[in-house]
Amino acid sequence: MKITTVTLAPNQAELTCYVQDKSAKMPNADIRPAMLIFPGGGYQYCSDREAEPVALAYMAEGFNAFVLRYTVGNDHPIDKALQDAQAALQYLRDNAADLAIDPQKIAAVGFSAGGHLAAALGTQSPADLRPNAMVLGYAVTQGSTWAMMGRSEPDLDKLVDDKTPPAYIFTTQSDRVVPVKNSLIFAEALADHDIPFELQIFPTGDHGLSLAKPATCSGDPAMCNQAVSQWLPASVDFLQKLWGHLEVMQPDAELATQTGRAPLTLNEPLKRILRNPEAAAVLQKEVPDMVDMVKKTPMFGSVSLRMIASFAGDRLPDELLDRIDAELAKLGGNA
Amino acid sequence: MKITTVTLAPNQAELTCYVQDKSAKMPNADIRPAMLIFPGGGYQYCSDREAEPVALAYMAEGFNAFVLRYTVGNDHPIDKALQDAQAALQYLRDNAADLAIDPQKIAAVGFSAGGHLAAALGTQSPADLRPNAMVLGYAVTQGSTWAMMGRSEPDLDKLVDDKTPPAYIFTTQSDRVVPVKNSLIFAEALADHDIPFELQIFPTGDHGLSLAKPATCSGDPAMCNQAVSQWLPASVDFLQKLWGHLEVMQPDAELATQTGRAPLTLNEPLKRILRNPEAAAVLQKEVPDMVDMVKKTPMFGSVSLRMIASFAGDRLPDELLDRIDAELAKLGGNA
Amino acid sequence: MKITTVTLAPNQAELTCYVQDKSAKMPNADIRPAMLIFPGGGYQYCSDREAEPVALAYMAEGFNAFVLRYTVGNDHPIDKALQDAQAALQYLRDNAADLAIDPQKIAAVGFSAGGHLAAALGTQSPADLRPNAMVLGYAVTQGSTWAMMGRSEPDLDKLVDDKTPPAYIFTTQSDRVVPVKNSLIFAEALADHDIPFELQIFPTGDHGLSLAKPATCSGDPAMCNQAVSQWLPASVDFLQKLWGHLEVMQPDAELATQTGRAPLTLNEPLKRILRNPEAAAVLQKEVPDMVDMVKKTPMFGSVSLRMIASFAGDRLPDELLDRIDAELAKLGGNA
Amino acid sequence: MKITTVTLAPNQAELTCYVQDKSAKMPNADIRPAMLIFPGGGYQYCSDREAEPVALAYMAEGFNAFVLRYTVGNDHPIDKALQDAQAALQYLRDNAADLAIDPQKIAAVGFSAGGHLAAALGTQSPADLRPNAMVLGYAVTQGSTWAMMGRSEPDLDKLVDDKTPPAYIFTTQSDRVVPVKNSLIFAEALADHDIPFELQIFPTGDHGLSLAKPATCSGDPAMCNQAVSQWLPASVDFLQKLWGHLEVMQPDAELATQTGRAPLTLNEPLKRILRNPEAAAVLQKEVPDMVDMVKKTPMFGSVSLRMIASFAGDRLPDELLDRIDAELAKLGGNA
Repeated sequence: MKITTVTLAPNQAELTCYVQDKSAKMPNADIRPAMLIFPGGGYQYCSDREAEPVALAYMAEGFNAFVLRYTVGNDHPIDKALQDAQAALQYLRDNAADLAIDPQKIAAVGFSAGGHLAAALGTQSPADLRPNAMVLGYAVTQGSTWAMMGRSEPDLDKLVDDKTPPAYIFTTQSDRVVPVKNSLIFAEALADHDIPFELQIFPTGDHGLSLAKPATCSGDPAMCNQAVSQWLPASVDFLQKLWGHLEVMQPDAELATQTGRAPLTLNEPLKRILRNPEAAAVLQKEVPDMVDMVKKTPMFGSVSLRMIASFAGDRLPDELLDRIDAELAKLGGNA
Repeated sequence: MKITTVTLAPNQAELTCYVQDKSAKMPNADIRPAMLIFPGGGYQYCSDREAEPVALAYMAEGFNAFVLRYTVGNDHPIDKALQDAQAALQYLRDNAADLAIDPQKIAAVGFSAGGHLAAALGTQSPADLRPNAMVLGYAVTQGSTWAMMGRSEPDLDKLVDDKTPPAYIFTTQSDRVVPVKNSLIFAEALADHDIPFELQIFPTGDHGLSLAKPATCSGDPAMCNQAVSQWLPASVDFLQKLWGHLEVMQPDAELATQTGRAPLTLNEPLKRILRNPEAAAVLQKEVPDMVDMVKKTPMFGSVSLRMIASFAGDRLPDELLDRIDAELAKLGGNA
Repeated sequence: MKITTVTLAPNQAELTCYVQDKSAKMPNADIRPAMLIFPGGGYQYCSDREAEPVALAYMAEGFNAFVLRYTVGNDHPIDKALQDAQAALQYLRDNAADLAIDPQKIAAVGFSAGGHLAAALGTQSPADLRPNAMVLGYAVTQGSTWAMMGRSEPDLDKLVDDKTPPAYIFTTQSDRVVPVKNSLIFAEALADHDIPFELQIFPTGDHGLSLAKPATCSGDPAMCNQAVSQWLPASVDFLQKLWGHLEVMQPDAELATQTGRAPLTLNEPLKRILRNPEAAAVLQKEVPDMVDMVKKTPMFGSVSLRMIASFAGDRLPDELLDRIDAELAKLGGNA
Repeated sequence: MKITTVTLAPNQAELTCYVQDKSAKMPNADIRPAMLIFPGGGYQYCSDREAEPVALAYMAEGFNAFVLRYTVGNDHPIDKALQDAQAALQYLRDNAADLAIDPQKIAAVGFSAGGHLAAALGTQSPADLRPNAMVLGYAVTQGSTWAMMGRSEPDLDKLVDDKTPPAYIFTTQSDRVVPVKNSLIFAEALADHDIPFELQIFPTGDHGLSLAKPATCSGDPAMCNQAVSQWLPASVDFLQKLWGHLEVMQPDAELATQTGRAPLTLNEPLKRILRNPEAAAVLQKEVPDMVDMVKKTPMFGSVSLRMIASFAGDRLPDELLDRIDAELAKLGGNA
């Protein structure tokens, strides 16, 4: 493994690159997924507990890892840290070959304020300067939480759009620094935009658990938490479903359809059908009340008319659904 | 094990009781926690896939189990099913000794419409007719979801109060029947009321996974899902943290303080301090802006002033916090 | 589920049958694998801790379960218990349809003395009166262990033959009743006869752990052991690899070849090639020293000449191996 | 993390040292346990698949890691590799402070031929040049296996003595290069000498699985094996039970007594009592047949007379055992 540290313009932030050795014995690992790591610390400091140990945990699962020590301090506005995150992401993409990573398989993981930075990179950053996935640990996403700390920041959930990357999100209800609703509200926004996500909210465990294992607990047993420590492998599973892994694991077919192209049928969620204007017109003609419902209540976009028909009594007769499917079949797959 | 079926007034609903044999060799299991099971089926039927296999899964973890086949059918309003659920809960409490269960360790698990029934029992039912915990699988909690199916029901999240029992909640984002936001919105309400919960939202998996294992998949590989199948042991862990288990596991101390009595200090979440009128008065005098903030944004109730002080610069100086703690110390623990 | 108890001739042993309900919703579970359970107790009694809780654990994984309370007591020779075990197995096979089980997917699990009974059923019993698999928990297999307790029994490892069924075996090194070597020596015999097995020896944990979970610990925390409790799911995985499971899991291809028919090549273990007389003659001609080695040291039967060639320097040149493979190819697969 | 490579006399073997950064935020990790890694390759080469990826896996669990590329090649006798292993161990002990490791918490892990090297270091090496624990993956321990490859080496099981370190051992029955009995026979020798061990033999999986995960599978799905991949965390658990971990986990009390000092009672395994000459004399006087039995059959050393009394009818009456315990109580603990 080679470990190098590069200094990034314009704020002289330091990016430590952990690149595993290539070997003729492991040709499938010549190109690896990348994990870009933002430690927490309230934008006052970057916590070592959420830096190298996290890099090692992902390297052990086959990733190359990159720890960013972004600009911090009371006098520094958060947008300098965002500049640093963008510069790090650009550096990874520009040097993907040398860093032995896939430039389109770069995830950003952050904790607390670092989680805010990862979420900001996935929402506030231009579409071409966003990571391919996010892992958010007890992340701050709400401006109101910053307000408590005397900072003014936008609500990131309101900035979620169709180009926001998929996210694995975890936190604990008993977090006494970042209210659990930061994660719940952000997950809702992802759901509204049909962005794939996984969410784990554990009942107990305090703020700043990092890996929740002995190596990151600073000797405090309360910071080891067997249940919470499962977030790391769960986040790896999520990314493997999304991207496949090292040429032996294929992307999850079901997850792929959530973003990719699928045939237009009433077995699909309504929102996927409605993305196609011609298909939307068919639904508007045949089941206008359902289209109105999705417009009024976006959460219904996830529903399949075929699936709910069995519970909906005679409001959705088979003849009607069959006729619609026949029309949709003429239109080909979704956008 | 004895298996008996009782018919419950007023709707002749059938409750199947699975009561494990007692043994002098296992005295710690003379009294067991109870799991009351509500299968799903859109209030049209009760699905076998979410009945006996679920009973067996919890019995294998030391519970006695009770499957309720509540009133269903298009012509039946949901409140008949709620009557059945209340009757079943009352039957368990009235016959706790014979059923070898602890009348104050009764959890209700439900799936889909059955999850709605479990959540309704925990919110719409009188406080003394609620279970001691809920396990909600891809549950319907929003009236708007019922509206899609032509039924009119209240939003259960709006009925959550301080007497709503703790809940383990799981679903999948890709559920094409019950939008994932049903679970997210209900979890938010629990967070607002400081009710302990665990939430797992898996990215993939279709509606009706039940245990997501071979025995419940009807032969369809897509209904086996290794990741999702972890909800069952996770729900058992949650209940064991809440209640302890069979005299060898103690309740989780941290989870206990979320509902129980704890000393009043600024290490505690603000909402616990504010529950004590005298303590609230102290905060109102010393940090009125923080009290206002919690009033305006309930989610801040979970924050500890001590914990955020390190991120809040000089807005919360130690002298101030020490003075407040000194005053709180005079008041004893929270209500 | 139906629970019935039948009394078996000739010793009036009681067999409790737990048969799960069939359902049109779960057609793949109309026929289930069966677990025949022999509790432990030194042939003095049958321990409840290793009876119904074990039945529930396997039922939760999709099995139907059958608990045998075999003949016990100082005055009873072990062969009466073996009669009971054979009668129970025969009853399951004769009534497979009524019991909703596959008569060729019957495993016998036993603990301590019950483990001895399961192993005896797999070795001392006529080939057509053996289970299809064994699960042996801290089992007694050595006559010398019986000698300590004043009984005279043969070493079961010496009775292992090609008709002995596959086995999942577990115990703890710190067992103070049944020496760990009982399991090690029996596993060696299975290895010598190419019978598939899995062996887990945990470093700590006392005799009689059963499921090593709260429900079976009698209130003694020392009898709960998170590591050891993994034996149950591991045994289920072993049986699923062996048999497939409920029409959604296929048998493990690799495990299948260990017992089934495979092409004769030098990639195969030598013992499989040597089972075919013509193939044996080819090896005798081409690599007599290797054949002698297997005769002298049966453990080499598991070796593939192709695989060790790369470590064996020039003792096994490719030309030689290619010539042998060419000759073997003419002979078809193994018996 | 600092990565340095040192060249060791006398054979210029290269030792790559992976030393994690210290941090004031993680004071409990200032001194870490060490994992010394011996890749496999039949003493012909050192496999990259069993080198850096294994180092990363243990680092992620809190270890510092050290990969030794020992002397290999047809012309090299194995004792040169053993010299290298001893030199590496000595280097770690001599430079423990600089390497931030505990000189008495050094484990050696090896695979295949590397497993032989680890086992040789634990048996053939002088007592003060042995690791504190061994992790043996599909290791060669039997001379007969070397004979197949044209090398002459002693049976390591015959060299096991009371100073052989505890071992975690795993392999697969279907290994076509190293017969499974290599692991079984070595484990038996550890059992005979009361050396703590854990043994996992998986039914399927070919030789050389390394971590059995995507990163080490070379792109071959057959070399990923979810079940076998559990050996790594299981080996970490074993070492944590043995040593405790990073000041938050205590050594396992039960495992500690296996090597440490414990009170002399008939609840203890006989061998621990017999280690004390005076105590041995008591047993010789009171239960000479039991003492003879242990002499004749060492495996009985693990038995506790109290534990088997309940199964042994009236051969071990309570009065007798009580009288013996009274005499033992006068002698204090075992050596």
